[in-house]
Amino acid sequence: MSTDAQQACFEAGIKFGSLYHQFAGTPVSPASTRSLETAMAEAIENQPYCESVEVTVHDDRVREAIDHENGYTELTGSLMDVTMRVVYEDVVVRTRMEMEGGYPLMKLVDVEE
Amino acid sequence: MSTDAQQACFEAGIKFGSLYHQFAGTPVSPASTRSLETAMAEAIENQPYCESVEVTVHDDRVREAIDHENGYTELTGSLMDVTMRVVYEDVVVRTRMEMEGGYPLMKLVDVEE
Amino acid sequence: MSTDAQQACFEAGIKFGSLYHQFAGTPVSPASTRSLETAMAEAIENQPYCESVEVTVHDDRVREAIDHENGYTELTGSLMDVTMRVVYEDVVVRTRMEMEGGYPLMKLVDVEE
Amino acid sequence: MSTDAQQACFEAGIKFGSLYHQFAGTPVSPASTRSLETAMAEAIENQPYCESVEVTVHDDRVREAIDHENGYTELTGSLMDVTMRVVYEDVVVRTRMEMEGGYPLMKLVDVEE
Repeated sequence: MSTDAQQACFEAGIKFGSLYHQFAGTPVSPASTRSLETAMAEAIENQPYCESVEVTVHDDRVREAIDHENGYTELTGSLMDVTMRVVYEDVVVRTRMEMEGGYPLMKLVDVEE
Repeated sequence: MSTDAQQACFEAGIKFGSLYHQFAGTPVSPASTRSLETAMAEAIENQPYCESVEVTVHDDRVREAIDHENGYTELTGSLMDVTMRVVYEDVVVRTRMEMEGGYPLMKLVDVEE
Repeated sequence: MSTDAQQACFEAGIKFGSLYHQFAGTPVSPASTRSLETAMAEAIENQPYCESVEVTVHDDRVREAIDHENGYTELTGSLMDVTMRVVYEDVVVRTRMEMEGGYPLMKLVDVEE
Repeated sequence: MSTDAQQACFEAGIKFGSLYHQFAGTPVSPASTRSLETAMAEAIENQPYCESVEVTVHDDRVREAIDHENGYTELTGSLMDVTMRVVYEDVVVRTRMEMEGGYPLMKLVDVEE
């Protein structure tokens, strides 16, 4: 009904959706970007077939997004870059979240069988 | 770098991970199962390529999971069934969340090119 | 250690934080505002001491926030109004989320003993 | 309409509800407990009036909750202890999440004016 490569891509999508919707909305400031990056990556790396996750929350974008009175903002896709490597059977899938036309887009970068 | 079918499976995975991690933890009782089902389905149907989502939150399982003092529980995978239909270019992907060995599993049911 | 009125205010705060961080980030469009409003209100009304919750997700603000290509946006505080009524022992607490200086603020409106 | 102490308790409640519903459902294993603890504490400490947050995710409880096949579980209140200190004007509020009758309960420990 489905190939290993298709299954690998499905798994990769699950990880991306999970990461985004688990952590979007988290209060963030330049003081907490490093711990949030690490926690996001390590949380999603727990999921099956997820070999590695790299998250960069950009301090400069966080600073720009901050309300001066509040001192923090909420995590959204436009503040971070994410790359993942998912391995299912003999298939390696690489994905990336990047800005396109001002909006964050989750992308399938490469499927290697 | 990737086929339409692989892209379709990636998109299907994103929707599943999004649905699960957006709504897991929501306070739920038999009085609120219907509205939660509808909101989950309609929220995820907003996402690109997502043609239809069906969510069933099982009243009997919710009732069993409830702490008698509190009167509600938190939504988890074991309380619901989810099916989705994702269409990308000419590819139709059907997915299902079901219990396997006591744990909820997101499954690629069918990929039709 | 604490009065009934203080406990009532604590409970009211819990409900507000719960509602916001459970549902922020949910994909939303004018086609799904009604179901999201209902699900949010009914979910939080499950929590102890929470007598009523009213949520308005503003269709016009959702429309303005939407990326034309995507057709949906993510729920944030600036798209909605929320009011709650929490009753603990003989104390009634009313709260409201409203925009102030361009940012959503959760406010204690009234504490009635 | 409300005293500083009541406002302080409301703020303390917001922080608790935020922490719980932002992070409940996060995939967790003994390999990721430390980073999750730090990220949760630092995220919520960004919020106004929140002086300190301490989170302990118990490795032994995480291990017990883990499905042997999956290797991870989802964060819930029963896996962690949380204490917070909120300061509003001259009022100090201390809160704690603890298990009671098998269920996690958010508690107002002390209000000091």
